[in-house]
Amino acid sequence: MTYCVAVIVPEGIAFCSDSRTSAGVDQINTYTKMFSFGQPGARQFVLLSAGNLATTQGVIAKIEKDLKLVDGVSLFTVADMNEAADYIGEISRAQQAKTGGGAPYQASFLLGGQITGKPPQLHLVYPEGNHITTSKDTLFLQIGDSKYGKPILDRIIKTETSLQTAALCALVSMDSTMRSNLTVGPPIDVQLYFTDSLAPGNSYHLVENCDYLVQLRNAWNDKLLESFSQLPLLQNANIPPQ
Amino acid sequence: MTYCVAVIVPEGIAFCSDSRTSAGVDQINTYTKMFSFGQPGARQFVLLSAGNLATTQGVIAKIEKDLKLVDGVSLFTVADMNEAADYIGEISRAQQAKTGGGAPYQASFLLGGQITGKPPQLHLVYPEGNHITTSKDTLFLQIGDSKYGKPILDRIIKTETSLQTAALCALVSMDSTMRSNLTVGPPIDVQLYFTDSLAPGNSYHLVENCDYLVQLRNAWNDKLLESFSQLPLLQNANIPPQ
Repeated sequence: MTYCVAVIVPEGIAFCSDSRTSAGVDQINTYTKMFSFGQPGARQFVLLSAGNLATTQGVIAKIEKDLKLVDGVSLFTVADMNEAADYIGEISRAQQAKTGGGAPYQASFLLGGQITGKPPQLHLVYPEGNHITTSKDTLFLQIGDSKYGKPILDRIIKTETSLQTAALCALVSMDSTMRSNLTVGPPIDVQLYFTDSLAPGNSYHLVENCDYLVQLRNAWNDKLLESFSQLPLLQNANIPPQ
Repeated sequence: MTYCVAVIVPEGIAFCSDSRTSAGVDQINTYTKMFSFGQPGARQFVLLSAGNLATTQGVIAKIEKDLKLVDGVSLFTVADMNEAADYIGEISRAQQAKTGGGAPYQASFLLGGQITGKPPQLHLVYPEGNHITTSKDTLFLQIGDSKYGKPILDRIIKTETSLQTAALCALVSMDSTMRSNLTVGPPIDVQLYFTDSLAPGNSYHLVENCDYLVQLRNAWNDKLLESFSQLPLLQNANIPPQ
């Protein structure tokens, strides 16, 4: 399984992905699910992938191949982020169709970035090739096993959230997911895109038990336990037992 | 959808369930999913249900009918909790089979309780009628939309957890689920079973926006936000950007 999340705020877009792939529980491997493409000053994209590894690798290979073409559509020729998402959707469908298609070969993508003269955008591309983007009320998108990590995003992410806070929240969301689901695991990739930079932002590769990840995990766990211990018990509440 | 959770600790078993049922988004209704059956001093059961409402209502009706029989198997004749779970599994399968069966008619149950002379036990009965119980490492079981509420249970519930803390954790788990999933909603039912009491424990019916639920929700949200605000930002960590 996989967990990827991206959060869009005025300062930019924060991306976070795990690196565990499994084809059965005895076939666990480590692959990054985060890919960047760009022309500094002109356009910058980050792509996160979930689903069948052969499909997602095929899509990445096709993107890279198309980037070298003199003619034809590629991430360097699309006019806007919506067209970029269409393009990812089309090559994902084509890749799935090579196998005959069906649920085991499906893949989903989060595509975020910016093309010069346009605002930054974030899209979720479904296995069927269609896609959705964010809105002023929906500032994050997730692919893979998204439920464990959704509550903290629902609480924290607001329109005015800073990009650093968005990245931190994505990491805490990833930590909750890894705790509850063994098929999501490190290394964790984090990448920031700063609005109007049209260039790669900071990127971090957090290996299992690296100092920062351990510090974050312990701090969050301790604070949660402490917070929980201060909650009002039901027996002390003024509710008459029925 | 539904969310039900039960936690077993040495002091007893804490049960928690929501009350929202939906047959399509324009067909939302409120039904309790918590049912108690017992003979004071001899045996006590609490049953939580998830899945097709016609199936679960059919199962409850059959349980109640069987309890009035002079002969035949019922919750008052089964020898132990394992047999009780077998019995629930059988009548659930029979109820599903009336429709011809299939995924839309499935139901799952959490059955907890105690029969005199035996230890308290908690079982999860699958739609197929088979069931699992807890272990010293697995102290809670969930049915319905269980992922949103699992991380907090994973953090808090330990062998030595008190019954009141287990109930509080189940409520916080329910709160996280309701926040992230509109198809899970109040009133919330909470019931405690105290080990060796062989009688119903305290039970609470928490309606939407009751004082305690609002107080708990606000306290937890405030503490989470405060805790989150104290976490170390990635930019301040000693990780060289790649």
